Amino acid sequence: MKEIMAIVRQNKVNATKNALAEAGFPAFTCRKVMGRGKKPIDPSVVKTILEAEAMPVSPVGEYITEASRLIPKRCFVLVVPDEEVKRLVEVIMEVNSTENPGDGKIFVLPIMESYRVRDGKNVDDIDSSY
Amino acid sequence: MKEIMAIVRQNKVNATKNALAEAGFPAFTCRKVMGRGKKPIDPSVVKTILEAEAMPVSPVGEYITEASRLIPKRCFVLVVPDEEVKRLVEVIMEVNSTENPGDGKIFVLPIMESYRVRDGKNVDDIDSSY
Amino acid sequence: MKEIMAIVRQNKVNATKNALAEAGFPAFTCRKVMGRGKKPIDPSVVKTILEAEAMPVSPVGEYITEASRLIPKRCFVLVVPDEEVKRLVEVIMEVNSTENPGDGKIFVLPIMESYRVRDGKNVDDIDSSY
Repeated sequence: MKEIMAIVRQNKVNATKNALAEAGFPAFTCRKVMGRGKKPIDPSVVKTILEAEAMPVSPVGEYITEASRLIPKRCFVLVVPDEEVKRLVEVIMEVNSTENPGDGKIFVLPIMESYRVRDGKNVDDIDSSY
Repeated sequence: MKEIMAIVRQNKVNATKNALAEAGFPAFTCRKVMGRGKKPIDPSVVKTILEAEAMPVSPVGEYITEASRLIPKRCFVLVVPDEEVKRLVEVIMEVNSTENPGDGKIFVLPIMESYRVRDGKNVDDIDSSY
Repeated sequence: MKEIMAIVRQNKVNATKNALAEAGFPAFTCRKVMGRGKKPIDPSVVKTILEAEAMPVSPVGEYITEASRLIPKRCFVLVVPDEEVKRLVEVIMEVNSTENPGDGKIFVLPIMESYRVRDGKNVDDIDSSY
């Protein structure tokens, strides 16, 4: 099993969610993160992005204060069998690539053990996605 | 050392926290995540779950909009020595299993190095839980 | 490539962000977590810490209710080449160490593959930080 951690634009959450379901990867978690790439960012651009993506005012205000020039992103985490990693990475890239900087990154980490809380069964023995 | 990542129901946070402390695992982080399992979810069921778990209105509203049919979950992360992994997984499963779908998953990842920020000491050399 | 996960005080976000940029690690994500170390915590101390760090009232109220005695922390995640890990850990420790308990922990995890969403290129082949 492998963990796939994908950091993507927040306005791609719904499209990613639908693409994953269609490709047979229905199970995942999604979390809010603030992030930054390599390039310095013009604050006025950040403001425009935030407005364009219709972020609620309060959490943005909080982050702008504490971490100016960080961009709100979403982090998808999925755990899948080794043989599904390549296809999953392609699904995520296809729906998230706009060919512009800021599209995000995908990382693959090793999972050593995985259990279903309900009954303690090893996830490998149950099915192909958690 | 290993990282244990446990995705559980949000109404199990307090019980999990107490069970971990009693079992000698006092140190951890807990974060909000939105997640989905394998099965399609009836929106009216989600509404009932949200009401039953008394989520504050605003963050739910936000997520419902951007990621309909994702369920709010909590993700516990602990880092423990290899020989404690099995017992920790059992503690988390015992307190979180309701024998129903949606109880969550537990994943074990390798940790290669671990440091205490205060003094740079390797966590392995300090004690059994960060 | 390695993932560096650093759990630090929330009032160290800006200093950490600046130190990372100056040291040539501009790219990272930062997320909110609630955490606890090994020692039992006096609730009055938590209150003082929260006031001192000027947390907005609502999220604290929410967490106090559901997870009393958890401290809000920030979790930085960076992915860097193997040869940069040691220097990155030192940069994070230097800016975050107050020599008091609660300064946080740093963990190093293996990354098996890493891709840039924009064009699918392997991050190893592009540059030294994502």
